[in-house]
Amino acid sequence: MTAKRWQKALLRPDTIALVGVSDDPLKTSGRPLKFLRAAGYAGKVYSINPNRDTVQGEAAYRSLSDLPEVPEHAFILTGAQFALDALEECERLGVPVATVLATGFAEAGAAGAENLARLSALTGRGKLRVLGPSSIGLANLHHGMTLTANAAFAESDLPKGGLFVASHSGSLIGALMSRGKRKGLGFAGLVSVGGEGDLAIGDVCMAALDDPDVTGFLLFLEHMGHADRLERFAKEAARRGKPVAVFKLGRSDEAAELAQSHTGSLAGADEVADVFLRACGMARVDSFEGLLEAAPLLARVPAASAPRRGRVGVITTTGGGAAMAVDQLAGRGVEIVPASEETRARLRAAGIDPGNNRILDLTLAGTRYDIMRSAIEILRSAPEFDLVLVSVGSSARFNPDLAVQPAIDLIDAPGHPFAVFLVPDAPDAARRLAGAGVPAFEDPETCADAVAAALHRQTPSLPERSAKAPRGEGRTLDEAEAYGRLAGLPVADWVALDADAPVPALPFPYPVVAKVLDAEIPHKSDAGGVVVGIDGPAALAEAVASIRANVEAHLPGHRVAQVLVQQMRAGVGEVLVGMRRDPEVGPVVVLAAGGIFTEIYRDAVMRLAPIDMAGAKEMIAGLKATQILDGARGRQKGDLDALAEAIVAVSRLALAGDVIEAEVNPLMVLPKGEGVAAVDALMRVEAE
Amino acid sequence: MTAKRWQKALLRPDTIALVGVSDDPLKTSGRPLKFLRAAGYAGKVYSINPNRDTVQGEAAYRSLSDLPEVPEHAFILTGAQFALDALEECERLGVPVATVLATGFAEAGAAGAENLARLSALTGRGKLRVLGPSSIGLANLHHGMTLTANAAFAESDLPKGGLFVASHSGSLIGALMSRGKRKGLGFAGLVSVGGEGDLAIGDVCMAALDDPDVTGFLLFLEHMGHADRLERFAKEAARRGKPVAVFKLGRSDEAAELAQSHTGSLAGADEVADVFLRACGMARVDSFEGLLEAAPLLARVPAASAPRRGRVGVITTTGGGAAMAVDQLAGRGVEIVPASEETRARLRAAGIDPGNNRILDLTLAGTRYDIMRSAIEILRSAPEFDLVLVSVGSSARFNPDLAVQPAIDLIDAPGHPFAVFLVPDAPDAARRLAGAGVPAFEDPETCADAVAAALHRQTPSLPERSAKAPRGEGRTLDEAEAYGRLAGLPVADWVALDADAPVPALPFPYPVVAKVLDAEIPHKSDAGGVVVGIDGPAALAEAVASIRANVEAHLPGHRVAQVLVQQMRAGVGEVLVGMRRDPEVGPVVVLAAGGIFTEIYRDAVMRLAPIDMAGAKEMIAGLKATQILDGARGRQKGDLDALAEAIVAVSRLALAGDVIEAEVNPLMVLPKGEGVAAVDALMRVEAE
Repeated sequence: MTAKRWQKALLRPDTIALVGVSDDPLKTSGRPLKFLRAAGYAGKVYSINPNRDTVQGEAAYRSLSDLPEVPEHAFILTGAQFALDALEECERLGVPVATVLATGFAEAGAAGAENLARLSALTGRGKLRVLGPSSIGLANLHHGMTLTANAAFAESDLPKGGLFVASHSGSLIGALMSRGKRKGLGFAGLVSVGGEGDLAIGDVCMAALDDPDVTGFLLFLEHMGHADRLERFAKEAARRGKPVAVFKLGRSDEAAELAQSHTGSLAGADEVADVFLRACGMARVDSFEGLLEAAPLLARVPAASAPRRGRVGVITTTGGGAAMAVDQLAGRGVEIVPASEETRARLRAAGIDPGNNRILDLTLAGTRYDIMRSAIEILRSAPEFDLVLVSVGSSARFNPDLAVQPAIDLIDAPGHPFAVFLVPDAPDAARRLAGAGVPAFEDPETCADAVAAALHRQTPSLPERSAKAPRGEGRTLDEAEAYGRLAGLPVADWVALDADAPVPALPFPYPVVAKVLDAEIPHKSDAGGVVVGIDGPAALAEAVASIRANVEAHLPGHRVAQVLVQQMRAGVGEVLVGMRRDPEVGPVVVLAAGGIFTEIYRDAVMRLAPIDMAGAKEMIAGLKATQILDGARGRQKGDLDALAEAIVAVSRLALAGDVIEAEVNPLMVLPKGEGVAAVDALMRVEAE
Repeated sequence: MTAKRWQKALLRPDTIALVGVSDDPLKTSGRPLKFLRAAGYAGKVYSINPNRDTVQGEAAYRSLSDLPEVPEHAFILTGAQFALDALEECERLGVPVATVLATGFAEAGAAGAENLARLSALTGRGKLRVLGPSSIGLANLHHGMTLTANAAFAESDLPKGGLFVASHSGSLIGALMSRGKRKGLGFAGLVSVGGEGDLAIGDVCMAALDDPDVTGFLLFLEHMGHADRLERFAKEAARRGKPVAVFKLGRSDEAAELAQSHTGSLAGADEVADVFLRACGMARVDSFEGLLEAAPLLARVPAASAPRRGRVGVITTTGGGAAMAVDQLAGRGVEIVPASEETRARLRAAGIDPGNNRILDLTLAGTRYDIMRSAIEILRSAPEFDLVLVSVGSSARFNPDLAVQPAIDLIDAPGHPFAVFLVPDAPDAARRLAGAGVPAFEDPETCADAVAAALHRQTPSLPERSAKAPRGEGRTLDEAEAYGRLAGLPVADWVALDADAPVPALPFPYPVVAKVLDAEIPHKSDAGGVVVGIDGPAALAEAVASIRANVEAHLPGHRVAQVLVQQMRAGVGEVLVGMRRDPEVGPVVVLAAGGIFTEIYRDAVMRLAPIDMAGAKEMIAGLKATQILDGARGRQKGDLDALAEAIVAVSRLALAGDVIEAEVNPLMVLPKGEGVAAVDALMRVEAE
């Protein structure tokens, strides 16, 4: 089946079958018929109920096979077992898309797994695409298609507009719609994607991508499953200039666990998700309301082509109100920039006192149309800003006509993007602004969240990489093999010695370290397999003997065959550089502070792998421990260029499809000009 | 004048004079008269305008002296110069309280400082108390006293209730009132305290403390000025069981700067404010809406007598909605606790499937009154929880009668406190809940913010300490003098040597460190005044000579008289322990990770000083670096008991009124059982 066919059948079907629809419009399985009729859906709706001749006063059919035509979209409202039977009937009849309400698939133990397997086998044949299981349905508001059991769609005046919502959680499509309505925002479509037994959130959004009614996307993610399809969609959305805002659960481990048990799929580490969403050019917000409020702003703030903090100019009629937003913005790394001398001169010429603060406080004068308009115009054209934030006080509530009119009149004029923060409760002003397409915010926290997300959004920067998930646990390489795979990474000089042979002359100077060399002993120290500070041949011979004795005592029956001897190197500091293949988003490269500080302070930076030198330098700049490596407090400066090269080298393992995980720890950063030296490495590769 | 007299005149005056009131009710200086009349203020209002016989249709007087009686409260609406004249007239006539709208005091350079001095001289005489300058006025809604120029008070149906708002920012009293009204919250009073030329925010709240209409306080702080008065109020509020919620600007340096320039007062470091507010038993929230939403919750969650994370049980009708709140709660350190086996059995007995999740997801069954009621009752009586959070989905919007009725019916029943999070936009449900006194939240972020603030709130724990602010910069002690003042703190063995005399036999073993001993050289290393690793008498003599040479070269003309020689001690780790006297909140004790990591990772814990052993142990537990000191990753365990004793010893300097600042850095933490050893100390004391 072509993508076009199922995409139309999913979002714009001309005929719908409701399988298992109830006669009681208040019941979950009765709602979709009621909602479709209330919304004035123009297509044909067939009710299917094996036990009734009529449903909610309309003629009903006993089964899908009894229908006079093959429907484009079947919404199956029964339990899991009947649903699977109905899906098979759909496939037989040639129904292109079915939505499944039932739970009882992945999340329901052995029976659930069996159901899921039956579903996968069915959709795998390619004749039927399935939304769900656990989907509460979907709506296309411009087509009166409220094919959902979500009670939120009982309202008569559903807010139509350009936003397309796709959510793992079914209840939240209703919550987002009601909250958006309050703000004066409108929706093109809302989809509960449920358990993604077949169609994933990326597929669903892809189906809406070229709908001219859709201007932007809002995604509510509970996990990062099927990230490859999300990535494909994100790239296409960026190409079409349709912005994507994302709220993702799982900042805390508790919520990740909840999302997991709730959806039956494994929640990925939140940091990986963060890195992936950023690389996809999506704007991740941290607040629920921020997800809605970000949409109009993203439509006006183009994605940056390089990382930026973002420079914001603030105009206010109330110092305290603006200070709240400034506090939040600064906390998110956005710069609050004062007006330049030139801008101040222009303000003065317009009769506006620029004051002495970082923000432009118009006080009561700001309630005058001409003053506010001039202030916005002047700041929007000043080169020191990327965005202008206008904070409006009481007048927004009492004179919405006046207070926000300058913003409405200027929204399509040239200049930097701008946004309005409403300090009091001002629902009329909020709706007027939203109606005119002016980004408007009701809370300082959501304002800063969305503004920071918009300013920090970058164009997609997804590296070419081996996308396949690792097969199995793989096998661990020994240290020498690992070094062999780390092409381009400087390693401290080493030799592998036969543990039985006499100690030879070394090709590098003492002192050295001796380590058991054995793929089965990745944790060498724990087995007593490491001796440091060896200052000569006699001590080395003693060390080799002691390693043999320790390891063979630690692992009875095991024989130590080889010992790796390596020159000891002291650096300005040490770091960890690693690459791992995340099962959802693919390979990532990690740079972390060395030693115990990684764990205690979680000082680590992550990127999708592989990366180039510019990316590696951004990672280094993002690590707090870099201050130590870069000569803080009169310390010696480390060789950060060599470190960047090393990160690039490790990240290139992402292109080798068989490396599951690699970790160079520690990597000694030597003084500037002297490079870096790996002094240990671990690697897991796929078993042949 | 008695406190009672000015407190009544401030908040419940029977006669008011409006000095400089405008005939135009739309002008700022015309509004108070209009608002007082609209609110039906029952007392007498006198309009004073030297240029008019009538103002807004009422008879006006030329001056305060012309009035037929002495008013209790004068609101002075003129500019700064006229305002000062009017204040002097108030004092002459015996007016007990005046509120000043004018700006142009502290924040306006030399002229402002002069105005402020005149104001201080006047109020210093004790006959007149002043609210402001820069106060937009105040309102006592239960007395129809809308004595303010804030446009928000133009509304006819002002929301009466129990909350008392005091704010440094005048515009925000209007913003809080409008936002509270939307939520169904009511207010007893709202006060713009402005520049605190006389009455500070603590004084104003104290005046409202025994008003039976006032059930709780909401404070909007821009800075920590007059913290002593805030502390006095907080203690009294805690004694009366009237909770205090605080929003404070200045989490970011940018906002601190803004608050400073905006109010003319220095914003204190935010961490100090945090520690102080917590010790005062106030609940600090991070979100603006959270300040409002916290109030009903604080009324039901008693302050804890010891630190607690808080254990929350969650009931929901929508998994996705609850997960958002859980994510936010966990991020704030609150525990999300699953139901115990016993609780699960009780749920089953009530016909409720407890599921397998950390939260109780009732799904659609939760829309049934009896199911929701039983679930709330069972969790409220389960000992594993401190608080129950009920997350309500679509039904809150579509069936507010049903969906939130169980919560309303149970709010005064015995059991743990509980709160309701409304997932969709559900204004009716929010107002119904608020009307019944049920804590209700409209956003997952504000919900978690307020719940965490309530659970983490402790009863006041303010140590007795020298409250006075340090006078002047003080003088720096030399290292030996500093050790002498650090009674009870173990110091590594040391002697002071005459730099000119031959090196004597030392009373402790080598290796040692030699350091220049001179109060004028606090940064000894920078001056070349430190030699480490000295292994014998010859090396020591050499070190003393080299220190003399280095320091005398670094500070030409300076003569090195003494050198401090100290035994070198290596610890399991090192920390910084300090005490400093904050100009606003008084003495604080700081524990920080040693060395460069303090700066890079900002790993530090602060408390009001002095503290006891329990407090010191809480500080140690709060420091991330403690993991290193406590034997993480197979390291040697440090002597944390001795560390706690050392913190207590340093904190006791708070009782010595003349110590401005002391810092022991590093304090070596020796292996368990071996104690700690200070190896450097800096101290500043007040000059005699």
